[in-house]
Amino acid sequence: MECSSVLVETAGIHDNNVALTLEESPALISSFCNELDCMDGGGGYDIVNNQVIPTPGPPPNYRSHNASLQQSWEMNYQEAAIYLQEGENNDKFFTHPRNPKALAAYLFAHNHLFYMMELLTGVLLMVLSLCEAPAVPSLRLDVYVHATLELLALVMVAFELCMKLRWLGFHTFIRHKRTMVKTCVLLLQFVEAIVVLIRQTSHLRVTRALRPIFLVDCRYCGAVRRNLRQIFQSLPPFIDILLLLLFFMVIFAILGFCLFSPNTSDPYFNTLENSIVSLFVLVTTANFPDVMMPAYSRNRWSCVFFIVYLSIELYFIMNLLLAVVFDTFNGVEKMKFKSLLLHKRSAIDHAFQLLVSRQRPMGVSLKQFDGLMRFYRPRMSSRDRFLTYKALNTAGAPMLSLDDFYKFYEVIGLKWKARRSGEHWFDDLPHTTFLIFKGINLLVKSKAFQYTMYVVVAVNGVWILVETYMLNSGFSWSRMVPWSYIVFLTIYGVEVLLKITGLGPLAYFSSGWNLFDFSVTVFAFLGLITLAFDMEPFYFIVVLRPLQLLRLFKIKQRYRNVLDTMFELFPRMASLGLTLIIFYYSFAIVGMEFFADVVYPNCCNTSTVADSYRQINVTIGNRTVLDEGYYYLNNFNNILSSFVTLFELTVVNNWYITMEGVTSMTTHWSRLYFMTFYIVTMVVMTIIVAFILDAFVFRMNYSRKNKEPLLDPEDENGIVFEAEVSRDEALATLELYKKTCPGLSSLNSLQGVLLAMDRSGSSSLVYLGRRSRTKSDLSMKMYEEEIQEWYAEYSRENLPQSDRSLVERELDIPPPCPERES
Amino acid sequence: MECSSVLVETAGIHDNNVALTLEESPALISSFCNELDCMDGGGGYDIVNNQVIPTPGPPPNYRSHNASLQQSWEMNYQEAAIYLQEGENNDKFFTHPRNPKALAAYLFAHNHLFYMMELLTGVLLMVLSLCEAPAVPSLRLDVYVHATLELLALVMVAFELCMKLRWLGFHTFIRHKRTMVKTCVLLLQFVEAIVVLIRQTSHLRVTRALRPIFLVDCRYCGAVRRNLRQIFQSLPPFIDILLLLLFFMVIFAILGFCLFSPNTSDPYFNTLENSIVSLFVLVTTANFPDVMMPAYSRNRWSCVFFIVYLSIELYFIMNLLLAVVFDTFNGVEKMKFKSLLLHKRSAIDHAFQLLVSRQRPMGVSLKQFDGLMRFYRPRMSSRDRFLTYKALNTAGAPMLSLDDFYKFYEVIGLKWKARRSGEHWFDDLPHTTFLIFKGINLLVKSKAFQYTMYVVVAVNGVWILVETYMLNSGFSWSRMVPWSYIVFLTIYGVEVLLKITGLGPLAYFSSGWNLFDFSVTVFAFLGLITLAFDMEPFYFIVVLRPLQLLRLFKIKQRYRNVLDTMFELFPRMASLGLTLIIFYYSFAIVGMEFFADVVYPNCCNTSTVADSYRQINVTIGNRTVLDEGYYYLNNFNNILSSFVTLFELTVVNNWYITMEGVTSMTTHWSRLYFMTFYIVTMVVMTIIVAFILDAFVFRMNYSRKNKEPLLDPEDENGIVFEAEVSRDEALATLELYKKTCPGLSSLNSLQGVLLAMDRSGSSSLVYLGRRSRTKSDLSMKMYEEEIQEWYAEYSRENLPQSDRSLVERELDIPPPCPERES
Repeated sequence: MECSSVLVETAGIHDNNVALTLEESPALISSFCNELDCMDGGGGYDIVNNQVIPTPGPPPNYRSHNASLQQSWEMNYQEAAIYLQEGENNDKFFTHPRNPKALAAYLFAHNHLFYMMELLTGVLLMVLSLCEAPAVPSLRLDVYVHATLELLALVMVAFELCMKLRWLGFHTFIRHKRTMVKTCVLLLQFVEAIVVLIRQTSHLRVTRALRPIFLVDCRYCGAVRRNLRQIFQSLPPFIDILLLLLFFMVIFAILGFCLFSPNTSDPYFNTLENSIVSLFVLVTTANFPDVMMPAYSRNRWSCVFFIVYLSIELYFIMNLLLAVVFDTFNGVEKMKFKSLLLHKRSAIDHAFQLLVSRQRPMGVSLKQFDGLMRFYRPRMSSRDRFLTYKALNTAGAPMLSLDDFYKFYEVIGLKWKARRSGEHWFDDLPHTTFLIFKGINLLVKSKAFQYTMYVVVAVNGVWILVETYMLNSGFSWSRMVPWSYIVFLTIYGVEVLLKITGLGPLAYFSSGWNLFDFSVTVFAFLGLITLAFDMEPFYFIVVLRPLQLLRLFKIKQRYRNVLDTMFELFPRMASLGLTLIIFYYSFAIVGMEFFADVVYPNCCNTSTVADSYRQINVTIGNRTVLDEGYYYLNNFNNILSSFVTLFELTVVNNWYITMEGVTSMTTHWSRLYFMTFYIVTMVVMTIIVAFILDAFVFRMNYSRKNKEPLLDPEDENGIVFEAEVSRDEALATLELYKKTCPGLSSLNSLQGVLLAMDRSGSSSLVYLGRRSRTKSDLSMKMYEEEIQEWYAEYSRENLPQSDRSLVERELDIPPPCPERES
Repeated sequence: MECSSVLVETAGIHDNNVALTLEESPALISSFCNELDCMDGGGGYDIVNNQVIPTPGPPPNYRSHNASLQQSWEMNYQEAAIYLQEGENNDKFFTHPRNPKALAAYLFAHNHLFYMMELLTGVLLMVLSLCEAPAVPSLRLDVYVHATLELLALVMVAFELCMKLRWLGFHTFIRHKRTMVKTCVLLLQFVEAIVVLIRQTSHLRVTRALRPIFLVDCRYCGAVRRNLRQIFQSLPPFIDILLLLLFFMVIFAILGFCLFSPNTSDPYFNTLENSIVSLFVLVTTANFPDVMMPAYSRNRWSCVFFIVYLSIELYFIMNLLLAVVFDTFNGVEKMKFKSLLLHKRSAIDHAFQLLVSRQRPMGVSLKQFDGLMRFYRPRMSSRDRFLTYKALNTAGAPMLSLDDFYKFYEVIGLKWKARRSGEHWFDDLPHTTFLIFKGINLLVKSKAFQYTMYVVVAVNGVWILVETYMLNSGFSWSRMVPWSYIVFLTIYGVEVLLKITGLGPLAYFSSGWNLFDFSVTVFAFLGLITLAFDMEPFYFIVVLRPLQLLRLFKIKQRYRNVLDTMFELFPRMASLGLTLIIFYYSFAIVGMEFFADVVYPNCCNTSTVADSYRQINVTIGNRTVLDEGYYYLNNFNNILSSFVTLFELTVVNNWYITMEGVTSMTTHWSRLYFMTFYIVTMVVMTIIVAFILDAFVFRMNYSRKNKEPLLDPEDENGIVFEAEVSRDEALATLELYKKTCPGLSSLNSLQGVLLAMDRSGSSSLVYLGRRSRTKSDLSMKMYEEEIQEWYAEYSRENLPQSDRSLVERELDIPPPCPERES
């Protein structure tokens, strides 16, 4: 066996890679040889391949020069696919698998099954706190059970980490900060879980607050990780301004103490500590104007102190905080976009180098592209693979140039469909039916119909309002279904049916607004059924009726923009929400460990907020009424209550009542918890505000720059690519595919193209690839000029290196690849 | 007398003006002739001139062709000065005085005395409400007195309006919206004031809420007017989003009513009206979590309703509101800058056309420039006028070209000073003294000295904190002066003295930071004296000591930037504050008219907030304590209380307690007042936030773009221009000035230049003109490229017209102006 040739070939590939990443040590090459030697003997490498390609590769024991080269091409495809994946996921190249064993681990750890397992483990660990003491009453589990579950989950995490260790290698693993933190936390949790299992009782386990790390590290939580990174990047300027805020607070606390402490009836400034706490709470406005009142009733001019303080702290520095975060956020967003873009470009460069042959160093043929795609998107049909190639190959040249290939990420998400000859779904129906449907279609699309529906919705809205106002005595569920409900529902139902028949189900459901209409109508229908059949637990569906009114906002362009943006922002908002929940979780755990069961009805009698915790029977006239302060409900008795309490703290109003209640039952130091929480949520909330500001200002700038409304409802197509396929091309491609991967199932789609041509009798078919527009597309258009500069800068920095790697490839054995064209 | 020549000359000037403003009708020309005829007979025109130029002009009865031309040049100078003033104040050109009578009125109405009178009248009218019933107790005036005062003030306003009518002409006056509104309000107020005087008692005078109009219309309140305009410009998008907010509110109110009204212990949702009010208050978070508690205690899942509502309304739509306002604000700021810039350019164009002679249509000579300046800045010394000319004349050509003249507004505010030969103020002292001062100078400028002072300040800060913490028993004034106070004050005193001697008083006081140090030290000193001499009312000065700590923020660049920006923003912030106060005033008047004396201790027993208005004696143990709710202090009993109440409403927290208290004592409709106020302050506050955001983001972008910290403390020079004056030049100019205006007093400064040259023995002197950098300078640098586009666009639009006016000038009689150079 020509070990040397395989060695050189493999080393070549990896050396190329070395040249581009500058991370590798040359000593690895010798280790490769050993690896390959054992692998060649065992043939286990192909089994790993099999995991990714459903079609069987060449038999592993078939040994010839040609086969080994074929195998080396397959390796190249796979590596290119990995590079492209890394580019897509923004994985750094220094975690790129460096040897076959690493590759095996990499492939094992990079598929949806594994990701799902990661996610489930993370969620399981977090959900456990519902059942651990202090548990939600209905979900309480025995210590045995939840400790065992925890150990199981931790073992899973340990297994995942082992796979990562195998894939990254010890050296990289040690240097990868996130992974190291995860490992440490894992060890800690392991020890603790075992201790719990042995002692049969939970000790003070504040470290549970670290559990979200396992979730955050999941592949699927990339957005949360990015959010966290952005938060940390915004921190330095934020902390600077925060210090300014605290500094003014201390100065004013000293002033306030000096001015107001002589007034004995003023509980807010009687000690310096109280003074500082009062002013801290005052920044959140939660104790205003109460904090001012004792001083104000003594001397009217004391209001000046509070007005000056609030003007400086609340109206100036807090806004400054927002400005600084907004500015940093802006910069970070642009930098992120830039680095992502260049990372993708670099990934494409790497992949391109792996796909070109020595004879044609400047182009990728269809065969190579197809080989790549089989690894990159194993589930993609052969037709789509071919169409993607066509979409990239805009020049119509026999090969893809590097410039063509740079568009890779733009075309990869396209959904391909043959362009229909007609416009309507009912074009093929008999004439009479066609006319009926055509009529409905015209009706549904007419302005008159739309505005009639708006009027109906408006009338419905007024009706509901008046109706609700009429039954001021209180709403009761057990009433008859009002006839107006049935009338309006019928109208909506007819509208939905007309639209579905007129536009065709596909066109109808592709619009977000229609989907919204449809679901509201279906809900209303379900509500009717629940009312009719008296299914009490589902009554709440009935009250969703007023949501129909939201349709009215379609009338004005600005609202459409706002609501569309809202929908578009939703994924990002959700990830920000998730980030917030992760912070909540950690704080909830800490809160539960320290403050579980400390507040209860009629507690906190020593504090100034005792009234809010009161629960006594009061006799008014001859009725006994329960006089409740209710604040004992804002406790940390289990994780769900803690979440609600933390949400209340986030909204800030009256948060000091919860703080003072807990403080009066524990120690002064508890305030630290609440103040820290306030500052943390302030950071996250400021980021959220900055995000919304940024997103909207970006959109408005965009639509101003491009002089077009961003999301015209008529123009919901997003990005469209076109590819025309001729009969000969399709036949040639089918032939080629049959040769390279003889599995028939994946070729069905390509044969379908030929069949469609036969049916329509034309010699070519035009396919349209569509995908929705993403923020990245908008940014591409916004920063058009800057992007060219970045690219120029990037290629200045990287050109010599990629040239060098090309030269090094000249040493490789030329793979005898049968080209389609030859 | 050659009436025709004067006619043509004047008509030419005004026609030119017509061509540029496109506002004039040609019929005016004939009216001019009449006007000029009567004027020529009476000679009253020059008396008006005398009001502006302190130096006597040519005698009015001196009649010759030459004199009339000289007079027409003077008229040109004056008109050019008016144009430049209009350009500076952003007055539209259609209010430009069109005939000598108008000019007389214009000049009468455009000087600081008149402005002052306007301002005082406006302030007087507003201050009156302190004394009118319901008055501040100590300031109560009899109805006679305040009604008479009011009538007087209104007569003053009427007089001002008459002058304006005279100046604008009836036609323009009618078309000028602001003036018309003012006139209507004036009439209304007049009638009302007379009614009050006759009836001897104040009736329901809600129209007093319109009084701020008189103040806003003042010349000095231009910034407030601009703010108001900006607020109104931001309104349309704001209202759109507000509707969205209210819409969701109504939908959720219906949902909430349906869900929670069956719960009889829930007072927040028992009727639809209560439901809407509760959710309105919830948007401000003021009743959270109380509003949730009854429902939450019944069913834990009801928190979902509130969380969803708050997430949509508070965290999404409210931020959207900010985004929309911020975006509009951004656009408006840029447009404002553009229109101001082009307006100034147009004013310069007009003035330039008036200053050039027929022989030299492309340049303005020193004589003409000086003539202009005597009208434009009557108080400017002859030296500064000459130096300004030199600063404009960068090319050193005998005349100013139009391009030179475009820099007019940049150089007009410069303060001129001869460049000193040495650096230090003590350079001229004897050698020994020089060395001592030099040593002090070096010491003061050394890093070591600065950091020592920082350490001292920090130690002082910690000391104060610890000291205050120690006397936790309560602060008492009648203590001995602590020795630490004296020690630190001595150190600060020595520092101030060293710095003043080392840097020289001028250099010392030109830095804002030093001024701050100085005043804090002086305050501390005054505090020491008050303590030592037991002057009780001034004790508050002592507590200002901790402000010293602010000096620590000089250490970090970001803080310096922030604080400097804070100082720079101060004028704008003040004008925004004034705008807010004007809104407050109107609301306070309405509040006083309707809600004066409605709340009092132990009122509002029918409302849910009765506790907050309670004032009863409670016996705890053997002590009787006053249990106070204090909220009866938040009333509308006089204008000062109203202002405090409105500030509390602005801060929003617990505002519903005030609202519910007042509502329970009046009608449900009172809520409308509070809700309207909330929305209005929300608009103003959003504008303030947008302003701060915009200002900071602008600065950060600026410093990023120009790669330099914006306000390096070493570089506080701002804008610097240089002009070198040679002996010959100075002599020639002096000669010229003596010829044109023989008043000696104004020539002193120019003779001073010659004296200085004699003293130093050099044949030329270099003068430096400095002014601080304004926002406009920054904007000029930021929008550099766009400005060139605007200019190009502007000259495309205006070039044919200015050419035409030049051609028309060819018809004028050439004024025989003696040029300096000839």
